Amino acid sequence: MKVIGKNAVAELIKTDKTVDKILVMNGMRDDASRSLVKEAKNRGYKVQFAEKAVLDKECESKRHQGFIAFTSDFVYTEFEDLLSSVAGKENAFLVVADGIEDPHNLGSIIRVCECAGVDGLVIGKHRSAQVTDSVMRISEGSANHLKISRVVNLNNAIEKIKDLGIWVYALELGGSDIYKSDLRGKLCLVIGGEDTGVNKLTKQKCDGVITIPMNGKVNSLNASVALGVGVFEAVRQRN
Amino acid sequence: MKVIGKNAVAELIKTDKTVDKILVMNGMRDDASRSLVKEAKNRGYKVQFAEKAVLDKECESKRHQGFIAFTSDFVYTEFEDLLSSVAGKENAFLVVADGIEDPHNLGSIIRVCECAGVDGLVIGKHRSAQVTDSVMRISEGSANHLKISRVVNLNNAIEKIKDLGIWVYALELGGSDIYKSDLRGKLCLVIGGEDTGVNKLTKQKCDGVITIPMNGKVNSLNASVALGVGVFEAVRQRN
Repeated sequence: MKVIGKNAVAELIKTDKTVDKILVMNGMRDDASRSLVKEAKNRGYKVQFAEKAVLDKECESKRHQGFIAFTSDFVYTEFEDLLSSVAGKENAFLVVADGIEDPHNLGSIIRVCECAGVDGLVIGKHRSAQVTDSVMRISEGSANHLKISRVVNLNNAIEKIKDLGIWVYALELGGSDIYKSDLRGKLCLVIGGEDTGVNKLTKQKCDGVITIPMNGKVNSLNASVALGVGVFEAVRQRN
Repeated sequence: MKVIGKNAVAELIKTDKTVDKILVMNGMRDDASRSLVKEAKNRGYKVQFAEKAVLDKECESKRHQGFIAFTSDFVYTEFEDLLSSVAGKENAFLVVADGIEDPHNLGSIIRVCECAGVDGLVIGKHRSAQVTDSVMRISEGSANHLKISRVVNLNNAIEKIKDLGIWVYALELGGSDIYKSDLRGKLCLVIGGEDTGVNKLTKQKCDGVITIPMNGKVNSLNASVALGVGVFEAVRQRN
């Protein structure tokens, strides 16, 4: 897959992912670009300079900021491996994204999870955006630092998460006030898609529904913003 | 301007804005669409049915969900009027968005402000997305319920906000822990654009910088998500 954009490439080379080559636009002379090229060379990556047109061809939106890396496809974490990695962990913190179809939202959700230090994100194989090149770019490379698992059946996945003693809450309208809920300990938050919210059956699988109190008339937060508020409230309570 | 999408139109007709007509796609027979059409007619709006192709022509992305309303252009609140509306208010809460150029982010920021019950949003006339049709759609119609002012000079605006005894904080990396900051009382949060953050001079005008503590490696939240976390932390403290 392609990793596009200066920040995303800078993050990529800090990981142990296989990078086939890094394409750099001729004339990138600012300090950040120079040090990125130097760092990439130091780490033994193949750096190849090219005209803007060459990079534009690789990136339809042309928003490559002079840097495109080519790497093997995004490697999802096996769901069983994700479960093993949090089994018995006192502060286990997972997020399940149910039916997030907009790549912008998925990229932004990945950023939220990475910034907050969440242990892993579970998405559906169907009815969901996947970690494509553009999601990687929108995530500013965060996807490289977060365990992301895909499952066919989110309800089964939630059962297995609960089997580990993790409390699973849907973040939705109409539940208990999030600020009066105890989000310490083993926790999993479930966020739903823009139009549909968390699937009804999925919500029934959860231990409860928690809600961000609203003071307006429209009262509809973007899914990634709602998750951001929820996840960081959990982080606040845990510290 | 056009107000596009089912939710955005539903919100629009609840306001006292002038609606010239509402274009509805033939064959919208779900309950929500029917009750929206009924409501619009009850309120005396001109409802006109048309083929999908007609609506597609009015909306480049074709994401109109069968509803497009035509209304007079978005009316910004005069900055002086916004100031008057919060002068002396114990819990005055403003947001300043500095250099948000992405319409998705501006729409999402407007949703955050509206949901949280913020008194008003200030944006720049330059170097900033404006409240266009697509921002209105992304805001799910929230922009109709929020006072939004445009100013030429954000630094002058911040001076005037401070003159009202309102504490102004930039929400950025490298400041005081937001969870250890007192966000009660008269408050204004300043959020910066994706790449640049809050302008250096603007930051100097602020009373302080507050920061969401990060636990990851990339540690870059989307601007609207960061604002969501900041604004709702303030709401939590105020309740």
